[in-house]
Amino acid sequence: MDLTELETPCLVLDKRKMEKNIARIHGRMKDLGVNLRPHGKTAKNIDAVNLTLAGQSGGITVSTLKEAEYYLGYGISDIVYAVGIAPVKLERIAGIMQKGGKITLILDSIEQVRFVAAKAQQHGLTIPVLIELDCDGHRSGVTSDDPLLVDIGRMLDNEKGVSLEGVLTHAGGSYLCRSVEEICIMAEEERSAAVKSAEILRANGLPCPVVSVGSTPTANFAENLGGVTEVRAGVFIFYDLVMAGLGVCAESDIALSVLASIIGHQKRKGWVITDAGWMALSRDRGTASQTVDQGYGRVCDMEGNPLADLIVSGTNQEHGMIAERAEKGPGWEQLGIGNALRILPNHACATAAKHDRYYLIDGTTEVIDIWHRINGW
Amino acid sequence: MDLTELETPCLVLDKRKMEKNIARIHGRMKDLGVNLRPHGKTAKNIDAVNLTLAGQSGGITVSTLKEAEYYLGYGISDIVYAVGIAPVKLERIAGIMQKGGKITLILDSIEQVRFVAAKAQQHGLTIPVLIELDCDGHRSGVTSDDPLLVDIGRMLDNEKGVSLEGVLTHAGGSYLCRSVEEICIMAEEERSAAVKSAEILRANGLPCPVVSVGSTPTANFAENLGGVTEVRAGVFIFYDLVMAGLGVCAESDIALSVLASIIGHQKRKGWVITDAGWMALSRDRGTASQTVDQGYGRVCDMEGNPLADLIVSGTNQEHGMIAERAEKGPGWEQLGIGNALRILPNHACATAAKHDRYYLIDGTTEVIDIWHRINGW
Repeated sequence: MDLTELETPCLVLDKRKMEKNIARIHGRMKDLGVNLRPHGKTAKNIDAVNLTLAGQSGGITVSTLKEAEYYLGYGISDIVYAVGIAPVKLERIAGIMQKGGKITLILDSIEQVRFVAAKAQQHGLTIPVLIELDCDGHRSGVTSDDPLLVDIGRMLDNEKGVSLEGVLTHAGGSYLCRSVEEICIMAEEERSAAVKSAEILRANGLPCPVVSVGSTPTANFAENLGGVTEVRAGVFIFYDLVMAGLGVCAESDIALSVLASIIGHQKRKGWVITDAGWMALSRDRGTASQTVDQGYGRVCDMEGNPLADLIVSGTNQEHGMIAERAEKGPGWEQLGIGNALRILPNHACATAAKHDRYYLIDGTTEVIDIWHRINGW
Repeated sequence: MDLTELETPCLVLDKRKMEKNIARIHGRMKDLGVNLRPHGKTAKNIDAVNLTLAGQSGGITVSTLKEAEYYLGYGISDIVYAVGIAPVKLERIAGIMQKGGKITLILDSIEQVRFVAAKAQQHGLTIPVLIELDCDGHRSGVTSDDPLLVDIGRMLDNEKGVSLEGVLTHAGGSYLCRSVEEICIMAEEERSAAVKSAEILRANGLPCPVVSVGSTPTANFAENLGGVTEVRAGVFIFYDLVMAGLGVCAESDIALSVLASIIGHQKRKGWVITDAGWMALSRDRGTASQTVDQGYGRVCDMEGNPLADLIVSGTNQEHGMIAERAEKGPGWEQLGIGNALRILPNHACATAAKHDRYYLIDGTTEVIDIWHRINGW
């Protein structure tokens, strides 16, 4: 089957580009002497995650318990659930452990230690826990200079039902960097915050075997990961326009695109209308704050080559409006009504999440496989 | 079961508010003497759509063929597919017609008439078609002064395999209005563009039984719908912060909310962290261009009452950052780690689309039912 036969909108995954992206991060991890704990939240698919696990120690990261259960069902048992824990999720976590999963939680408060330990004791379990660190002020976590770090560490070490495994941080602020230099600096801040916190815990007589860091930008530009035991990253598998805008990848590395049909012309406005609206592309506007604003996505031909300067300039639920920026587009004839286009996403995780499957290609427009996704919670 | 027992994030639907919203639009349609053709794209659920059909003629609008097939499966056979047609969808449309569905297509080009007629002839079908009109320059459609209108009309009337049913327009630009006065003006522009186009077709000896208009804002404020045969609207069933910002509804009319757990405090920043990120809320920032920017959503207690001035100020995939604006929030104790909150959405269609089911309540926090959604294409 050829891409032109697929009903639109749908999600296209270029396997060759994905494999190149994975090989690149594996090479980086090898050079840095550290293990990759890939994040399963981007692909949400076992075949993709298995490719990222090649040559690594076998552990993964997840963002939902549905991912945890799904990957465990395929034999991946070492799982970090990298979202702060809430009480309503503990019964399900106990169930995952009872099925043989080693699911490690993260937290950054005394309250969380209390309710996790209580539930674990109730089930006769010992739940492994990482203390979440804040290395860049972008979200959650304790800072290395906060006495709470050692307080949480002591409590995890003392309470029954929980075990202190180490520390975890995520330099999510790196998505807002403006240059590779800034990413390099942030990578070192991420590393040093994690290593310093681990040293503080150890100096207080507490165990800290795991020192986990990671984000796709910092994983790509870290120059030294001394003291770090594992790197977590997710979006590297597909890349996207935000990553290209950051200089983390080239536009030609982006493995994911949305296939769309042209359903109209608005010649007075210079618009081409497609059937890929925000339901297919997502509302993500991650490039809006970058040097080059890519609208809701970059428009390519069926081979995945960018078409002049065309972007998706606006979206409704099931409509996308394509407009040219400075450069003159290919003209109405080449963008005929009924023809198909491919659109590169701003944010691969957000766009992929709008779809339940990937149509795989391998350098041509022939569909070679279909991979399913595990959405929801 | 109580809301506090649900695993978060999940979608909560207040049935009492929804029923009030539906009664209000039904009252308006009755006063205006026009039929409602509700849009099934907001709820994507048969029970909700059946409530909107009460007292109407039974036809609905859809945004995907999956919706069309789903609603047809529940006996709703009069369906307008309100997205410009592409060739790759025609086989499936033929299948819907062969199963007894009367699916009416929309188009705004000669090319589309050609490929629809060709496919219909191939299957021995006659596909009903509405000409899409542009009443406000926001998206697709031909304008009433464009000779293309009559050209398309003639071709639909002459070709085998297609039948000219009338005209359809959608004042989507009304979402960007800044006042009720502007919405009233836009409602009249929507009506007059549709009625004028119908008159032009009729003056050229062409049939135009259907004159279809609609958007939730214009449906709420139209003062006269003379010449219009049906109104399409979708988001009125739930309402949202964009509609409240427009003055179309009150914040207390919003029937939809996302239930979230508090998973952390960042006291230095004044943030409360929840597990409802953009995966649960969507990336929609529809209120960003309104007078009051609601961030990624308005924060309420478990009864659905807004909490001081709190909004979701930032989102990552599975994290939401809550911050107060001018007014002092309820304090860390009332927003304890492990507690739950409800978040009103910017755009009901976008937020609901992130979930596969609704947990229904009826004025209390007790869950009275679960309704499923039909996402995807």
